[in-house]
Amino acid sequence: MGPYSIGVDLGGTNLRAAAVSEKGKVLERVSVPAHYDAGPLQVVSEIVATIGKVRDKIPQGTLRGVGIGVPGFIDIEKGIVVGSSNLPGFNDFPARDEIQRVLGIPIILENDANAAALGEKWIGAGQDVKDLILLTLGTGIGGGVITNGKILHGSHGMAGEFGHMTVYPDGNPCGCGNNGCLEKHASATAIAAMGRMMHFGQEINTAEDVFRLAEAGNERARWVFESMGRALGISLASLINAFNFPLYLISGGPLPAWDFFAPSMLAEVRKRSFTFARTGTRIERAQLGADAGLLGAAYLPFQEMLTREAVTH
Amino acid sequence: MGPYSIGVDLGGTNLRAAAVSEKGKVLERVSVPAHYDAGPLQVVSEIVATIGKVRDKIPQGTLRGVGIGVPGFIDIEKGIVVGSSNLPGFNDFPARDEIQRVLGIPIILENDANAAALGEKWIGAGQDVKDLILLTLGTGIGGGVITNGKILHGSHGMAGEFGHMTVYPDGNPCGCGNNGCLEKHASATAIAAMGRMMHFGQEINTAEDVFRLAEAGNERARWVFESMGRALGISLASLINAFNFPLYLISGGPLPAWDFFAPSMLAEVRKRSFTFARTGTRIERAQLGADAGLLGAAYLPFQEMLTREAVTH
Repeated sequence: MGPYSIGVDLGGTNLRAAAVSEKGKVLERVSVPAHYDAGPLQVVSEIVATIGKVRDKIPQGTLRGVGIGVPGFIDIEKGIVVGSSNLPGFNDFPARDEIQRVLGIPIILENDANAAALGEKWIGAGQDVKDLILLTLGTGIGGGVITNGKILHGSHGMAGEFGHMTVYPDGNPCGCGNNGCLEKHASATAIAAMGRMMHFGQEINTAEDVFRLAEAGNERARWVFESMGRALGISLASLINAFNFPLYLISGGPLPAWDFFAPSMLAEVRKRSFTFARTGTRIERAQLGADAGLLGAAYLPFQEMLTREAVTH
Repeated sequence: MGPYSIGVDLGGTNLRAAAVSEKGKVLERVSVPAHYDAGPLQVVSEIVATIGKVRDKIPQGTLRGVGIGVPGFIDIEKGIVVGSSNLPGFNDFPARDEIQRVLGIPIILENDANAAALGEKWIGAGQDVKDLILLTLGTGIGGGVITNGKILHGSHGMAGEFGHMTVYPDGNPCGCGNNGCLEKHASATAIAAMGRMMHFGQEINTAEDVFRLAEAGNERARWVFESMGRALGISLASLINAFNFPLYLISGGPLPAWDFFAPSMLAEVRKRSFTFARTGTRIERAQLGADAGLLGAAYLPFQEMLTREAVTH
């Protein structure tokens, strides 16, 4: 058994950890129910215990480090979660140093959407490029930017907040105080909300309910995805004009509805970005699904090693 | 006299070149009328002659290289201008290699808006940050992205095309085929166009004409800048959400009207970007004016040397 790393994903319902080889092969996995409201000390001890469980399953081999994808804003240098609705009480708590102290191995904290983008770059849909953007459609819309193979953090780790790009200046009001945020028009939540306005004669709880109706041939359900694709395409076109990256990936629950939203999405992009048309830009489905963040987190210790080696040699 | 470099700016009316010290001091300047429609061979020989004129003015000192800011799309690796409305006939012409061959010194081609962003980072308004975005308001709106101190090129050197970000999905039609491009609502051209709709009772030729009226207290002229600031603010908010950079700079002809457009611009940014509010993001005036591109181009050879040294040591 060669060197390996451990990736951790602090998902909404489960705390997951996986041991991953240098080539991106998942060697072992553990998933436990998450109790994030128990306070940072308790959450940290659950994270430590889960990492320990995975580690115990690997008989030999060198553990290079642990990467942890956190749903929230991270101060990367300090290793602190500076804001996360899922992790109350973590503000200013030295999460990285505390976990590192107990386990005695290097820990890297990262925003989970950034980690997912890095995962897709490493062993997913973005292996052939150095620059990519990932948009993840869920309750909101998160995302990450990879440039020159690495996560673009911005000054406060908040780069990639694509969900709050303004798509319609006078559009639906958003909890953030803005109108017309992309996630009010193209997230899974937005799809369900549009679905509930369509008078389908049945209860709509999720974007999947709308997807099933679209699959069954319901015209209004298809219109919901067409509208969602338009909003997505308008924002993608602006991103393409700003970044001129070769690859933009879409992931998240609504991905199976690709055939319903992609045509209007691509029509908007073609109309609104001559960069797209002129430079062979690709917009594609992400490949790693819910594992993207876990795998990207696991890659972080390997990448840090590679960077160190490049500097010292 | 220590080492120096030469920056070249292929502006619309003049071809300018300057010898610049390692500390950013302009040692000598030359400006000649540009004749870009004379064909690439003739233009290249004019560029070579202008560089020679500057060089002849520096009695001693080592010329490190020449950076040339080009209004158009550049294939950086090949050193080719792949598209420029100002430079007809340059497509696929090996401009860099041809100039390099004649002069016998290293030449770097760069998009002029990218060069301007780099200039502001080097010795302008962005000296204290590593990441910044520059938006230049002119006939259109160009711009550049600096990350980790270097130009972000994207896959085809087209990153930073902020002028064609969609600000109003059903807004004014743009020559690019889109509706509601930022530059149709916030460029110097757009300011003049809005001015002409305001029935001022006098001829409006430029954004400056509208500015003079605003200064004189004309309410409708002020409204033009308020509207322009709103459009700029909507796009800036989206950029801030996507990049989370610490600094966004505005340059170009309309800059003197800052006090008329900044209030509505900042109001939109505050409403539409919680990243702006939470991370102390700055939106400021660029400092180098029309010299930004020239100075940024001159910095390119120095930066390449620094990068080479960092890799080999």
